[in-house]
Amino acid sequence: MVVILKKNPNEKQLENLKNWLQSLGLELHISNGANQTVMGLVGDTSVVDIDLIKALDIVESVKRIQEPFKNANRKFHPQDTVIQVGDVKLGGGNFQFIAGPCSVETEEQICAVAADVKAAGAGILRGGAFKPRTSPYSFQGLGAEGIRLLLEAKEKTGLPIITEIMDLHQLDCFDEVDIIQVGARNMQNFELLKELGHLRKPILIKRGMSATLQELLMSAEYVMAGGNEQVILCERGIRTFETATRNTLDLSAVPVLKSMSHLPVVIDPSHATGKASLVRPMAMAAAAAGADGLMIEVHNDPQHAWCDGPQSITPAAFAALAEDVRHILPYCQYNYEQI
Amino acid sequence: MVVILKKNPNEKQLENLKNWLQSLGLELHISNGANQTVMGLVGDTSVVDIDLIKALDIVESVKRIQEPFKNANRKFHPQDTVIQVGDVKLGGGNFQFIAGPCSVETEEQICAVAADVKAAGAGILRGGAFKPRTSPYSFQGLGAEGIRLLLEAKEKTGLPIITEIMDLHQLDCFDEVDIIQVGARNMQNFELLKELGHLRKPILIKRGMSATLQELLMSAEYVMAGGNEQVILCERGIRTFETATRNTLDLSAVPVLKSMSHLPVVIDPSHATGKASLVRPMAMAAAAAGADGLMIEVHNDPQHAWCDGPQSITPAAFAALAEDVRHILPYCQYNYEQI
Amino acid sequence: MVVILKKNPNEKQLENLKNWLQSLGLELHISNGANQTVMGLVGDTSVVDIDLIKALDIVESVKRIQEPFKNANRKFHPQDTVIQVGDVKLGGGNFQFIAGPCSVETEEQICAVAADVKAAGAGILRGGAFKPRTSPYSFQGLGAEGIRLLLEAKEKTGLPIITEIMDLHQLDCFDEVDIIQVGARNMQNFELLKELGHLRKPILIKRGMSATLQELLMSAEYVMAGGNEQVILCERGIRTFETATRNTLDLSAVPVLKSMSHLPVVIDPSHATGKASLVRPMAMAAAAAGADGLMIEVHNDPQHAWCDGPQSITPAAFAALAEDVRHILPYCQYNYEQI
Amino acid sequence: MVVILKKNPNEKQLENLKNWLQSLGLELHISNGANQTVMGLVGDTSVVDIDLIKALDIVESVKRIQEPFKNANRKFHPQDTVIQVGDVKLGGGNFQFIAGPCSVETEEQICAVAADVKAAGAGILRGGAFKPRTSPYSFQGLGAEGIRLLLEAKEKTGLPIITEIMDLHQLDCFDEVDIIQVGARNMQNFELLKELGHLRKPILIKRGMSATLQELLMSAEYVMAGGNEQVILCERGIRTFETATRNTLDLSAVPVLKSMSHLPVVIDPSHATGKASLVRPMAMAAAAAGADGLMIEVHNDPQHAWCDGPQSITPAAFAALAEDVRHILPYCQYNYEQI
Repeated sequence: MVVILKKNPNEKQLENLKNWLQSLGLELHISNGANQTVMGLVGDTSVVDIDLIKALDIVESVKRIQEPFKNANRKFHPQDTVIQVGDVKLGGGNFQFIAGPCSVETEEQICAVAADVKAAGAGILRGGAFKPRTSPYSFQGLGAEGIRLLLEAKEKTGLPIITEIMDLHQLDCFDEVDIIQVGARNMQNFELLKELGHLRKPILIKRGMSATLQELLMSAEYVMAGGNEQVILCERGIRTFETATRNTLDLSAVPVLKSMSHLPVVIDPSHATGKASLVRPMAMAAAAAGADGLMIEVHNDPQHAWCDGPQSITPAAFAALAEDVRHILPYCQYNYEQI
Repeated sequence: MVVILKKNPNEKQLENLKNWLQSLGLELHISNGANQTVMGLVGDTSVVDIDLIKALDIVESVKRIQEPFKNANRKFHPQDTVIQVGDVKLGGGNFQFIAGPCSVETEEQICAVAADVKAAGAGILRGGAFKPRTSPYSFQGLGAEGIRLLLEAKEKTGLPIITEIMDLHQLDCFDEVDIIQVGARNMQNFELLKELGHLRKPILIKRGMSATLQELLMSAEYVMAGGNEQVILCERGIRTFETATRNTLDLSAVPVLKSMSHLPVVIDPSHATGKASLVRPMAMAAAAAGADGLMIEVHNDPQHAWCDGPQSITPAAFAALAEDVRHILPYCQYNYEQI
Repeated sequence: MVVILKKNPNEKQLENLKNWLQSLGLELHISNGANQTVMGLVGDTSVVDIDLIKALDIVESVKRIQEPFKNANRKFHPQDTVIQVGDVKLGGGNFQFIAGPCSVETEEQICAVAADVKAAGAGILRGGAFKPRTSPYSFQGLGAEGIRLLLEAKEKTGLPIITEIMDLHQLDCFDEVDIIQVGARNMQNFELLKELGHLRKPILIKRGMSATLQELLMSAEYVMAGGNEQVILCERGIRTFETATRNTLDLSAVPVLKSMSHLPVVIDPSHATGKASLVRPMAMAAAAAGADGLMIEVHNDPQHAWCDGPQSITPAAFAALAEDVRHILPYCQYNYEQI
Repeated sequence: MVVILKKNPNEKQLENLKNWLQSLGLELHISNGANQTVMGLVGDTSVVDIDLIKALDIVESVKRIQEPFKNANRKFHPQDTVIQVGDVKLGGGNFQFIAGPCSVETEEQICAVAADVKAAGAGILRGGAFKPRTSPYSFQGLGAEGIRLLLEAKEKTGLPIITEIMDLHQLDCFDEVDIIQVGARNMQNFELLKELGHLRKPILIKRGMSATLQELLMSAEYVMAGGNEQVILCERGIRTFETATRNTLDLSAVPVLKSMSHLPVVIDPSHATGKASLVRPMAMAAAAAGADGLMIEVHNDPQHAWCDGPQSITPAAFAALAEDVRHILPYCQYNYEQI
């Protein structure tokens, strides 16, 4: 952390600042220039509340050099984290397809899709039970009943399941869910993150629509600070001025996150683009960028999906896509541990 | 709502679509052009799930013409909503200052600030008890104890209080809170919004950092759909590429929201800019744009504030600002009811 | 400027870097920490090409502390710049209205609007002759003939005129134009800026739709580096995800620019919002934020304007707006010279 | 195009509007609902200036259904455009690498890099002669001398060359240049585009940092409207709130542009990310998304590059990247002609 002081700082205030910083266990290095004084802080600055320093009268600006996250930081944990649910591994060279319908509708639907995506090579079944919808007048998901149907599909196919939690009071329904998803709109629902930090099961966190990559890692840090180290990061499109796609899929997030963190990174091209015809090229691009997995909406009858039909692909299209992805994966391995 | 069909749509599918739309109580108007067919839907289209139509094979695109919100819509409720807490009114020509520290720290602090802002003309006291912080290692607020201190300040000054809720399980602490604030990060925490819809006290909803104005109104609609019509909208800066300010304060939101909706609109220049020196000009600009109120961070000792010190102003600066705002208010009245 | 070195930098490379930086006249202050070395550069760092340093193997990152602009910098030129054309002053406490039609159409039109806006208090007449249009099939402006008509309106009313240049080869037409406007799309047309730096007449530069405030000041610096110190900055909306307005008017730009620079700042609410009904509240807000002037589209028959009719207001609406602005101006003075 | 009228429109004004639209050769289809009237316009609406209609008193809103571009539109020209320079083809299944240094520095440098990238499989040599730099104090390129050096490298290696034009007055220097590049900052320099439309050589247009894909196609349309049909589109990152990368590379632009247009699409991962370590994964991702080519900065000594060193890769890294891209290309073919 570098603190730039204003010209001619008040001596007494400066002394107070120095004493306080040293009491936090930080080493101070001070450069006095003709026009300004620069103070370098060395040590574990992740504990320093940057706002407290910025507010001081004698300080012009403060710049962080070290990242404010520790548990999620590759510098302190160089090896890739591998998430395991049942026999299925994700991360550390283990690529996974997470596939299924936007929302669970009926037992027939979810079981049929589950069987189809398993046959096409998916390792994990997704399906929405609690659905965050922009309008209170839209279908809000089957809720607990949706999770029950997912568990039936799990029993029939053996696929572990992932589904989204929207609020802490739903947590009881998630006992048998293999991976809990935190949606983009809840990425900074800190009370929820803290509570999930007390669990010992994988949490997939979707990047908020206007969250920086560092903020996504800080949300992972909330879960990990509670002792739960099984976090999966998911990029699903950010909000920009472009209107040709629902969101703008930020694929640079893959190599950037993987160089900053040891956590696995998954891409959701379905929500990012909002259009079925864009899912295949963007899924291929995500795999080529080095993603650890893909989360894809598959529906056996997209035209009659209860939500997000325009972005769902058929089981046949998913099977073709999965095969193409597997073809290119061997050429798309990047080693971040040595960077 | 206008549905544009693809060339030569399948007759049977078209017939099904028409029957379904008519069963929803909509009138259909069809224009057959040489190259395309346009279908106009007239009636209450807020109930139509636009995704279901978009997913159909025969449909090229769908465009909404009516807004998807009803209770918050000025078209159906032309008169300004006036929020009243105790003797204090907000909206409909009643301008209010909501002022206080970013976070409640001690009894002395909150009572001193409360007395100061009241003397300067503030009608409502703000103060954070539950604090959403990006980092799990930052100060998280005093919680329930913070609310207790706010209530003491209320008793001493008579000022009604507003403070933020972060999760439903905190709701018990809010029994005596006058206005409940939903923060920007929770703007689309739909479970929270639904529950607040069952209360009968004012809810102030802050616009999410990447939320459109329509989405903000849809979040208000979630609360109002539950029967709670006392909603205040708050713009506090959106996320853009500009880094000179923490966020970009979108003041056009004031006249746009007020023409779309009858709900009062409040501006928070402190969080938007992140810098104390920008609070006064932006507060003046907000008042000039026609806002119904200002939410301003005031701290008696900004340099030692436990959070967000850089954006807090002193009670003296607040008093000066409030006086200037009062000078210009008479020239900044716009009539949206007749538009 | 602060250079953060990687761990254990190559000694020889480090020596080379130090020698090079010292040869640029910079003082070096080096702090050796256990895990990193921080090098502070003191002196005129605006001449340092930051990319050259970042590219070095031994460098982890580089952070600029001083602004990279000099001529436009308030630190080196604390007094407000005042622009004068004829008897009309802009900046340094002199507020001006710049008004007129989006594009010059006929002699009758421009002379009528000129007389109307002068009567309402405008000090400068605007009007487009060369028009930048997104589509090659839209009306492209009257060109040189448009400037001739503007000059007739100037002769009749005495109002100095401002109009936009789109390319250097049009420069001959601008001999008698009082202020030359560089549009948002040309803000980084560096060849044009350099050439305008050789003139000795005021240049108004509009902020690009995705330009940071620092980039806008760098564009001003291009003009000023050529010796032309008469630059006016203009904010006209930036591009964000919000679609309710054409662009998002960033009014924080006013106090931020004015604290960074001594150049006058003008706001164009017409282009920013794209809607006539939003012009008045946003014009008032701009004045309240401390702008030095307003640039407003006025058309005597907005419904038949050849371009941008939806955002033009009538002469009567402009007169009412100007009167209201004059009422609030006395309360909206901020002193940046002492900051 | 769909025009939504306000309630109870003035009869005479409505009649005038209808007559005017019919005089433009458009067919009108009118739906009268209880609350609103919707007017569908069928025919060539690319000639209609949407602003003229929006400005009318009786109109509530106008929505375009057809794209406003014709020459660039795949609907009217289903086959992929293939650009040919010498023996080198780009587009229509012909993938190309465009490689070379950010700026031409010396004869030795450009010839060495040219030989290296040719050996690694590049088909076209890039190199900056006229350089758009944010600061007037940064290196501005060698200008005409830079083009002379590029032509020497072309003679030695046989590689066709591409370099950027910044202003029309430089056009004389481009006689022997094979492909003229229009930079992101000039994407809406309409005078330049018009003039390039009179040439009969390929023009590569880079997407502006805040340009929508439709606006990029409108800029292509400016060139094509002049009769020059050889246009290449290039995505090089857009501006968003994310600061971890210089810009956000929008790879969805590839399938979206290719479905909207028959023009070839090239990706520049070097400028988009600003970091050498991100070039390889993003180049692979671009190829996987279906790009027709890659534009990559290669420098034989990135640490001493005169500009943009941090994003340049070495010839050896380029050769490895090119080989990996060739491995995955066979699996990344998408057919847009039949969509």
